[in-house]
Amino acid sequence: MVGKHRQPGNIVTRRDLIREGEIDIQMEYFYDVPGSMPGTLRIPSDALPPIIGLIDYNEQKAVRLQLGTPEECAPHLDSESVSWLDVKGLGSEDVLQRLGQVFDLHPLVLEDVVNVPQRPKVEEYDDQLLIIARMVTPTESGSSFHQEQVSLILGRHYLLTVQEEPEFDCFGAVRDRIRTAKGIIRKRGADYLAYSLLDSIIDGFFPILEIYGEDIEELEDAVVESPTHQTLERIHTLRRELLVLRRAVWPMRDTINSLIRDGSDLISEDVRIYLRDCYDHTVQVLDMVETYRELASSLMDVYLSSVNNKMNEIMKVLTVISTIFIPLTFIVGIYGMNFDREKSPFNMPELDWYWGYPLCWVLMIVIALSLIAYFKRKGWFENVS
Amino acid sequence: MVGKHRQPGNIVTRRDLIREGEIDIQMEYFYDVPGSMPGTLRIPSDALPPIIGLIDYNEQKAVRLQLGTPEECAPHLDSESVSWLDVKGLGSEDVLQRLGQVFDLHPLVLEDVVNVPQRPKVEEYDDQLLIIARMVTPTESGSSFHQEQVSLILGRHYLLTVQEEPEFDCFGAVRDRIRTAKGIIRKRGADYLAYSLLDSIIDGFFPILEIYGEDIEELEDAVVESPTHQTLERIHTLRRELLVLRRAVWPMRDTINSLIRDGSDLISEDVRIYLRDCYDHTVQVLDMVETYRELASSLMDVYLSSVNNKMNEIMKVLTVISTIFIPLTFIVGIYGMNFDREKSPFNMPELDWYWGYPLCWVLMIVIALSLIAYFKRKGWFENVS
Amino acid sequence: MVGKHRQPGNIVTRRDLIREGEIDIQMEYFYDVPGSMPGTLRIPSDALPPIIGLIDYNEQKAVRLQLGTPEECAPHLDSESVSWLDVKGLGSEDVLQRLGQVFDLHPLVLEDVVNVPQRPKVEEYDDQLLIIARMVTPTESGSSFHQEQVSLILGRHYLLTVQEEPEFDCFGAVRDRIRTAKGIIRKRGADYLAYSLLDSIIDGFFPILEIYGEDIEELEDAVVESPTHQTLERIHTLRRELLVLRRAVWPMRDTINSLIRDGSDLISEDVRIYLRDCYDHTVQVLDMVETYRELASSLMDVYLSSVNNKMNEIMKVLTVISTIFIPLTFIVGIYGMNFDREKSPFNMPELDWYWGYPLCWVLMIVIALSLIAYFKRKGWFENVS
Amino acid sequence: MVGKHRQPGNIVTRRDLIREGEIDIQMEYFYDVPGSMPGTLRIPSDALPPIIGLIDYNEQKAVRLQLGTPEECAPHLDSESVSWLDVKGLGSEDVLQRLGQVFDLHPLVLEDVVNVPQRPKVEEYDDQLLIIARMVTPTESGSSFHQEQVSLILGRHYLLTVQEEPEFDCFGAVRDRIRTAKGIIRKRGADYLAYSLLDSIIDGFFPILEIYGEDIEELEDAVVESPTHQTLERIHTLRRELLVLRRAVWPMRDTINSLIRDGSDLISEDVRIYLRDCYDHTVQVLDMVETYRELASSLMDVYLSSVNNKMNEIMKVLTVISTIFIPLTFIVGIYGMNFDREKSPFNMPELDWYWGYPLCWVLMIVIALSLIAYFKRKGWFENVS
Amino acid sequence: MVGKHRQPGNIVTRRDLIREGEIDIQMEYFYDVPGSMPGTLRIPSDALPPIIGLIDYNEQKAVRLQLGTPEECAPHLDSESVSWLDVKGLGSEDVLQRLGQVFDLHPLVLEDVVNVPQRPKVEEYDDQLLIIARMVTPTESGSSFHQEQVSLILGRHYLLTVQEEPEFDCFGAVRDRIRTAKGIIRKRGADYLAYSLLDSIIDGFFPILEIYGEDIEELEDAVVESPTHQTLERIHTLRRELLVLRRAVWPMRDTINSLIRDGSDLISEDVRIYLRDCYDHTVQVLDMVETYRELASSLMDVYLSSVNNKMNEIMKVLTVISTIFIPLTFIVGIYGMNFDREKSPFNMPELDWYWGYPLCWVLMIVIALSLIAYFKRKGWFENVS
Repeated sequence: MVGKHRQPGNIVTRRDLIREGEIDIQMEYFYDVPGSMPGTLRIPSDALPPIIGLIDYNEQKAVRLQLGTPEECAPHLDSESVSWLDVKGLGSEDVLQRLGQVFDLHPLVLEDVVNVPQRPKVEEYDDQLLIIARMVTPTESGSSFHQEQVSLILGRHYLLTVQEEPEFDCFGAVRDRIRTAKGIIRKRGADYLAYSLLDSIIDGFFPILEIYGEDIEELEDAVVESPTHQTLERIHTLRRELLVLRRAVWPMRDTINSLIRDGSDLISEDVRIYLRDCYDHTVQVLDMVETYRELASSLMDVYLSSVNNKMNEIMKVLTVISTIFIPLTFIVGIYGMNFDREKSPFNMPELDWYWGYPLCWVLMIVIALSLIAYFKRKGWFENVS
Repeated sequence: MVGKHRQPGNIVTRRDLIREGEIDIQMEYFYDVPGSMPGTLRIPSDALPPIIGLIDYNEQKAVRLQLGTPEECAPHLDSESVSWLDVKGLGSEDVLQRLGQVFDLHPLVLEDVVNVPQRPKVEEYDDQLLIIARMVTPTESGSSFHQEQVSLILGRHYLLTVQEEPEFDCFGAVRDRIRTAKGIIRKRGADYLAYSLLDSIIDGFFPILEIYGEDIEELEDAVVESPTHQTLERIHTLRRELLVLRRAVWPMRDTINSLIRDGSDLISEDVRIYLRDCYDHTVQVLDMVETYRELASSLMDVYLSSVNNKMNEIMKVLTVISTIFIPLTFIVGIYGMNFDREKSPFNMPELDWYWGYPLCWVLMIVIALSLIAYFKRKGWFENVS
Repeated sequence: MVGKHRQPGNIVTRRDLIREGEIDIQMEYFYDVPGSMPGTLRIPSDALPPIIGLIDYNEQKAVRLQLGTPEECAPHLDSESVSWLDVKGLGSEDVLQRLGQVFDLHPLVLEDVVNVPQRPKVEEYDDQLLIIARMVTPTESGSSFHQEQVSLILGRHYLLTVQEEPEFDCFGAVRDRIRTAKGIIRKRGADYLAYSLLDSIIDGFFPILEIYGEDIEELEDAVVESPTHQTLERIHTLRRELLVLRRAVWPMRDTINSLIRDGSDLISEDVRIYLRDCYDHTVQVLDMVETYRELASSLMDVYLSSVNNKMNEIMKVLTVISTIFIPLTFIVGIYGMNFDREKSPFNMPELDWYWGYPLCWVLMIVIALSLIAYFKRKGWFENVS
Repeated sequence: MVGKHRQPGNIVTRRDLIREGEIDIQMEYFYDVPGSMPGTLRIPSDALPPIIGLIDYNEQKAVRLQLGTPEECAPHLDSESVSWLDVKGLGSEDVLQRLGQVFDLHPLVLEDVVNVPQRPKVEEYDDQLLIIARMVTPTESGSSFHQEQVSLILGRHYLLTVQEEPEFDCFGAVRDRIRTAKGIIRKRGADYLAYSLLDSIIDGFFPILEIYGEDIEELEDAVVESPTHQTLERIHTLRRELLVLRRAVWPMRDTINSLIRDGSDLISEDVRIYLRDCYDHTVQVLDMVETYRELASSLMDVYLSSVNNKMNEIMKVLTVISTIFIPLTFIVGIYGMNFDREKSPFNMPELDWYWGYPLCWVLMIVIALSLIAYFKRKGWFENVS
Repeated sequence: MVGKHRQPGNIVTRRDLIREGEIDIQMEYFYDVPGSMPGTLRIPSDALPPIIGLIDYNEQKAVRLQLGTPEECAPHLDSESVSWLDVKGLGSEDVLQRLGQVFDLHPLVLEDVVNVPQRPKVEEYDDQLLIIARMVTPTESGSSFHQEQVSLILGRHYLLTVQEEPEFDCFGAVRDRIRTAKGIIRKRGADYLAYSLLDSIIDGFFPILEIYGEDIEELEDAVVESPTHQTLERIHTLRRELLVLRRAVWPMRDTINSLIRDGSDLISEDVRIYLRDCYDHTVQVLDMVETYRELASSLMDVYLSSVNNKMNEIMKVLTVISTIFIPLTFIVGIYGMNFDREKSPFNMPELDWYWGYPLCWVLMIVIALSLIAYFKRKGWFENVS
């Protein structure tokens, strides 16, 4: 999924990238074997083995550890400090099951975490809050995005996050803020940490939207100036990818809204104010996705119309040239006839005239000029030039 | 409705299958004779005689019996163990009426069970909960789906399920789980069993959607590369079948939602948590159906535009060739005229020139080349090659 | 409004029938003179004189009478038995006013009953419930439907129904059930009777929908195989008629829903369960109307595309033939030129060659074949055959 | 805004009327100078001076007066009889300000009354209810409508109505009912009067809709039979005017609904029942507007398709004639070549044949006939005739 | 962003202005670095340094000061008089941070104020109400609009407003009303001032809409009379700009509505009545934007159809001229053939006829006239003239 180095002068459409497997924006579908037991884990075949990282902090100190097994984090969970266990990769059923035991997860929680992709949602369990979110990160080639599911399980003093893949992540800035004790993050609990991560996820949509905004501006010029097959494919791909984005963002909005409205007591009043801000950003993302969708739809109209206009210009050229030469060719055909001039004075006497040939040319030039004048008056030359 | 064996290299469109009667995705309509008495059973003419199976289990043991008459299950209904009576086939009014007596069904319940298709819904009666669901199963030919109604009547210690046809079913895995006591199913009541079946039904939509997802990807290539009449028909069929799916899933969502929200005391709090999971899957199915519908609609636009583009290329070829040869033909016409050169020195002196014929060719080649240059500058050769 | 006898081989479009006045699916509009007094009756000019029928029944007996004047039913209204007064035809203001006095109707009730068409609705008055419904019945020619308003006024022990026309009616089966004491109808009150009639009205939509379903299937073949002007008109007519149906069914759904939810004490709990069933059917009708509307809209796309495809084939034929012959005609034009071969050895020496003419043919055949090969490679012959 | 006398045979499109200034259906916009003080009156520059009429009635008597100044009505306001002050014309700020003082109007009420057009709405003030409505009246030329704002200010014993223009009005019938004591209007209070006026306003939409219904029927024939530029303009104008109507009716519905639901105690329970009837009519108007909008949109599709069909017929004629004559012209070109028959026996020996010329004709006729047969088999002559 | 002086006769499209950077209606997007700390200020790179103005007034007096630092306003905040601090320009993080300290702003409030553009919204904090609004002002060139964010922070006795840019503003009239004590503004508190500013902002949309209304009317003529590429671009630009307007107004409606419904006690009952009026205007703006959007969409249809019609006329000319001359050219070709008349009496005896040539002309004229008659009968000349 990493973009190879490309020559700058080489135009590569997003569709090419999709074909080459570099971009992964197909409509992923959730797949559950009908009749399978609830709680059955379906590990994706290409999943990478999980990497387990722990950050444990309070106002005074912050430690970061790389763990070998989920059980190693157990001592941290009971302390009053905030423990953030970050699991990246879904490639081991054993590790995930043991994780479930350490955190005492409901079988359905574990299923939702592992059987990706799930729809973003928030669910309350006895002492835990499960938040499913969808994270997008720009690809290296910079022309599209990579998406994965992030599951957050919020407890009293801990936060467990599970990501699909070790590679992509937009939590770096949050880790830095914890390390450097920047802002108030070290003074707050696990709920503030969960908010910070959600906020990072939502803000991660903006760079993607920026790319699409530029795409649309490019396409707006392209559809008018040089509408080609490629333009058509790009518009369709754009609409398709905006549908994917929309599918990701809509439920995020509901998720964050229900965190604000009917969230459990795991989230403090204070953090709810911050979540309101996060909610605003989600609405803004959604707003822009919908706006872009409408623009893409309008672009399709303009594209069709532009192609039509190009065609019309071509047809005009054909019409103008045909229509001028057809009568002329008729005339030269007349004087190519072989009527026997000796048999009758009425048989093509023009051929014997002294000025016959020049007069014929004069006639033809007059016809051509009057046709051109007629077309000019009709305005046919306006776009043909 | 069983797919015949097909040669792999032989392309068969879904429409062909529909014509051959192998696929059955027409818009089925409910038909009730106006003024008919409520509770009137309308047995479909091609219904097969019912097969009655009973599974009776508790934590300790599980038995599976094939029953001859509905009355045989009466002794099982009173016991504390969970009794699952599975009736497959609607072909006998007598059996169905007796079933109604054994389970003490309201006449309207029996009507809804028999007079298929009904809209999915949940209805509460005194001691029973009627759940109407729609089950889809892939056909053997693998290219489309078969749909039928499944009615679940949930009582305190029993579950009665009625299927339209004996052949198709997605409950095999649930039966295995009961037999092998896998998971917690043997420890729970009839409500958990009902949940398990509903979950199987919903999960049964995913393989179907996977097929449509692949169809759309195929069509996305087809509309751009080789848009034919067949492509058009496939898009229309796709839209039509997605409409059928949507009609099936929308009310399922409401059904499961009302089971969660205002369900009776026949469903325990515990099972409601599991139903929430089932609800999420339904929303996901719906989400995908809507996404596919939008894509199909966008495909139509692309198809129309592609066909247009093909046409434009053809018109360009015509225009280019006509426009080049029309002036040339005019010129050769001129020198085919029979003006009498002896009568006047002005009458086509070119014909007598020493270099006349070669000069004529030079003139024509110059005209042709300048026209070609003009077309090239206008970019007409870009797609014509 | 009765279909004349038609020859079977004679294709008659629905539009023809409309023109001939046999079908009556125009957008009827309610018309009230601005400023007219509430309660003003507006008798349609072509209304037929009312026929008044009375059915009076209880569990023991059922009598059916034809009444001359509304007042004759007065004695029946006070008895405990259920009295169903069925008035067919709106052609006499006098009779309608007297009816209003006998049943003590609010002026607005009488206005709604007479000034058809009203939107389906339910309204509660002191001791009465006014239900306005829309009834559709298939026409004899079987190709479309006839619609009229049915007003039901439900009292404690009586039901007054007013129909627009004496001729069409779908209550026959209900009358039979009363006469033969089939089912439980004779054991229940006037509310059950009202439910039975509403159920008949709703079920009356299904045969109509069946016709449209077949129409759509026919059109699906027609638009692909032989799209003509007639097809276009049929699609437009279909859309128009589905709009009419939708206008009729939407408010019916709300009507029945409000009967279930906030109905007065004139409707017993028991009957509400039956009305739930009736509501389900209404939703199903609506569902199908909406599905058909979407299909009709998709058909329009397919039609336009099919017409386009036909056109493209025609243009291809023109292009192929023109493009092959234009260069050939140019060549034969060349050798029709009259350059003087005696004046110069460069002037068309080909004309003097021994193999000149055969070589000319060879050249032309080579050109024609390479053009044909080019077109074949471009795939232009695929649909032209 | 008065239609001039027109010759019956002279077709005048609605657009012509708009251009001539006779019809006034442009999108009017409310204009408020940014930052202007609330309560600032913006008298339209072409407003006519107000005419003030008073009708004062109770069950016994009814008087109608023409007032010179607003203050003259003050004595009537305190009496128990119903006083209806009808102000027509907004052309004098002085009169309007004094009116505000006499009725003790809130500055915002006066602003809403004067600064037309406002959106229909209902607003409750201490002892008054402000109802803004939109009234449409057919123009004299009968082809379109005139719209203006009517403001109703309902007090305990009085009703103040303010109309934009003196000329148009649909309250004549209500005034007659008061004068002749027809119906119950003289027995009721000011709230019943307000209802009667609102009812008149709503019913005033029906004649307008009737015109549009006829327009649509005309257009339905026109788009199929003779689709011209004018048809296109008429469809666009229709859509535009239906948008105007919709903008007027939507808020009317909400207005009347809120009068019924949360109206103040100025409206008696009794009148609320009548308003329910009025609400039904509004819904019906809205229903029809939406239906017409859908039909107009479908008409656009049919128009485009019809124009396309016409074009296709023209192209078919071109194709048929070109395709038949192009090969023939090629043949006659061949035998116009000047290969020297004396130099070689292979050089065009056909020209020396005895039956050469007739055979040439036979060949050409055979080619023409087989092409015609081919076109006939392809069905190209079906619409060309 | 200031329009240069333009020659009146010089047509400048809005797109040109956008290209020249004079108009700024692109889809602005909010951009937050993922993972950035809440409260991080992101000063736009081209922001101008803030200008701080203070207006302090009560019923008796009103002073206006230009402040150097935010701290200078501190003494005014405690007094009972209303203090309006107006900050224009976001170009100094230092000033903005100090502003936050003086007014004791929550970090999220400051973020929303500075990190423009935010979605319009209202948020309640302890003693403050944050209102985010979007202000549009016409550009000097008069052909489009400039938009910026205005943040209002309402306290008990003060109002802090922050604007993006010093230059544009629609609050002049409000300042004048304070200075001249016109109306009641000097008698009311800070909430009335906030209302006045919001009202100015909303009313500022009307002149913009007026421009678009005129644009649409112009386009309505243009699409029918001279549909060009430019027209297409103008329609697309119109749709795009209306989308921008809609994005601005929708949340404004919700904002003002929530100020009315669940606003804090910072807003008095009295002012809420005025806000209702402001809400009505917002709904009206929205109404018009939606209406214009529908018209623009209908314009697109008309445009496409007009272009089609133009094309059809061109094709008709080609068809008419080709179809007339093709048979004639065939005829003259015939008599150009060189069949040897001496070898056979059947070889083109017409060439020897006495009246041969004149008869040939007669034949051709007859053919031409009958074709012209045929086309006339088909109505092809109607639009071609």
